[in-house]
Amino acid sequence: MAKRLGAQTALLTRTVSVAAGASVVGRKEGEGPLRERFDEIGDDAYFGQKTWEKAESVMLKRCFETLCRKARISASELHYLLAGDLQSQCTGSVFAARESAVPFLGLYGACSTMGEAMTLGALLIDGGAAEAVCAMTSSHFCAAEREFRLPLEYGGQRAPSAQWTATASGAVLLRSGDCGVRITHITTGKIVDAGVTDAGNMGAAMAPAAWETLRAHFSDTGRSPGDYDAVITGDLGRFGHEMLEELARREGVGFPNVFTDCGMLLYDAQRQDVHAGGSGCGCSAAVFAGHILKCLREGMWKRILFAPTGALMSSVTSQQGESIPGICHALAIEAEGAE
Amino acid sequence: MAKRLGAQTALLTRTVSVAAGASVVGRKEGEGPLRERFDEIGDDAYFGQKTWEKAESVMLKRCFETLCRKARISASELHYLLAGDLQSQCTGSVFAARESAVPFLGLYGACSTMGEAMTLGALLIDGGAAEAVCAMTSSHFCAAEREFRLPLEYGGQRAPSAQWTATASGAVLLRSGDCGVRITHITTGKIVDAGVTDAGNMGAAMAPAAWETLRAHFSDTGRSPGDYDAVITGDLGRFGHEMLEELARREGVGFPNVFTDCGMLLYDAQRQDVHAGGSGCGCSAAVFAGHILKCLREGMWKRILFAPTGALMSSVTSQQGESIPGICHALAIEAEGAE
Repeated sequence: MAKRLGAQTALLTRTVSVAAGASVVGRKEGEGPLRERFDEIGDDAYFGQKTWEKAESVMLKRCFETLCRKARISASELHYLLAGDLQSQCTGSVFAARESAVPFLGLYGACSTMGEAMTLGALLIDGGAAEAVCAMTSSHFCAAEREFRLPLEYGGQRAPSAQWTATASGAVLLRSGDCGVRITHITTGKIVDAGVTDAGNMGAAMAPAAWETLRAHFSDTGRSPGDYDAVITGDLGRFGHEMLEELARREGVGFPNVFTDCGMLLYDAQRQDVHAGGSGCGCSAAVFAGHILKCLREGMWKRILFAPTGALMSSVTSQQGESIPGICHALAIEAEGAE
Repeated sequence: MAKRLGAQTALLTRTVSVAAGASVVGRKEGEGPLRERFDEIGDDAYFGQKTWEKAESVMLKRCFETLCRKARISASELHYLLAGDLQSQCTGSVFAARESAVPFLGLYGACSTMGEAMTLGALLIDGGAAEAVCAMTSSHFCAAEREFRLPLEYGGQRAPSAQWTATASGAVLLRSGDCGVRITHITTGKIVDAGVTDAGNMGAAMAPAAWETLRAHFSDTGRSPGDYDAVITGDLGRFGHEMLEELARREGVGFPNVFTDCGMLLYDAQRQDVHAGGSGCGCSAAVFAGHILKCLREGMWKRILFAPTGALMSSVTSQQGESIPGICHALAIEAEGAE
């Protein structure tokens, strides 16, 4: 049974492990610095389908199947499937999960969705409602451009601060008991709206939310950045990450160890022309399942803070002149032997 | 700590109460048979805003504030706010919750969202991660027509099987400890796709999912329909409800007590010209918070099964020829003195 720490944090008291991870990504993502880390790389944007939306569902479905295969678990052993994506009404995940026959909980946290899915999955296990759950998310560059911005055919110029929505999916199996890597603390974020209205600069919209959640985490747990080998936000991109560093610096907080962002890890920004970096639900999900989890398993890091961030807007709210609220959920995760 | 029962059900072991409910609805909903049950009825579709989408957020925000006022709780005492709606990227709830400063978990389960929010809220409390949470959802007729169907200005004819998306919002306060009405069992639904493609007949798309969840609930708990004073699905409407009855009858299951549907309770279908009945996230939420909860409080019912249903489609999936998957989550709820 979880214990509450401070205003926003839950301390897990059962052992909840990240037992396995799987990732399936698009071609561009498979040409980036993490190319060796993913389970499958698509040949093109279509994954054998006729539309980008169906392609996203097939990519995520393959990711789910890969996870089950790698973890040697059948879908019928999963108590819940927690999933979400960027498509309207989260249909990317719905159609990916349609044939799974696992009790389904649909989530929407924009690019923070993997953080939200792992949060709820871990708390369901900690609370005894489940022994094994799958948390998964995806995004698709072409589907997201159509959903949030302009038709691809329009060929619009991207601002230097713009991020590239990853064609990527990630899934993790969470289960009770010790499987080497465990989730220990969960800090759930509030909606933070700093008044940013530029949909071409999502990093700026999300950075204040990321800082609020990190600050709450350190305050609630009594930990400091130095207690983590790596603090990894999700999808702020280069500019948003610089802004987050500045926000922390103003309050006298520095990050002595690795301080990075999934949106900066996924691509070689210069070579791959993605401007400020990656974004999309699938970015932090694939980077976590493909890369971060392995860094923990391989002993490179003992304890990390994983903090996916999301920009909670739609094309309708943009058109109606609304600002872009941000959110960030943080999970403390440690490998065996962390002190 | 929850105990698992069978394949899809969690038995709560902590006392998790529905401590309070609030509902704010539109004018049409305020002219229906439940008019005396709601906390606030809007004068028009705009709630003082310039767009329907902003109107929905303001309606839901007022509902949240009404809940806090009625329950004499400040938002800062809430550990989580679980919310969702039908707008793309769930922005209806995001903008309603933007200033609440409560840790926020966005959900998408179409019209089943209130069931999902209460499910996760109750399990977070049962598992110790929270002492008090708010679960809330909304829908808005005009915003939903634009989102899912046709511009209102087009004045399209509605099929007799079509349902009317409610302009309505509902919120409940869930908390640990005994406040008279408690959630005891939760059965989480799987995605069920019966191959229905008619977006003008959502009841038919959801009825098979509703039956699968009810059947799982009875099987997991060893209960039968006769153990409940009322079994109330969410938003199947008249045709969907008839179909559900038929599916149950074929397996020899009858419902000896009240067997009804939130979509049938909200309007006087004939007089109010809503064809098959109400739908939308806000329908089951407002009917639960405004009416069902009071029936439990007032002693009319001792034990009920509340089973909101959702159709997991979007205008894009319809245009791409996909069928409409359904989902249903069921919660057993009882008043003090239930045996």
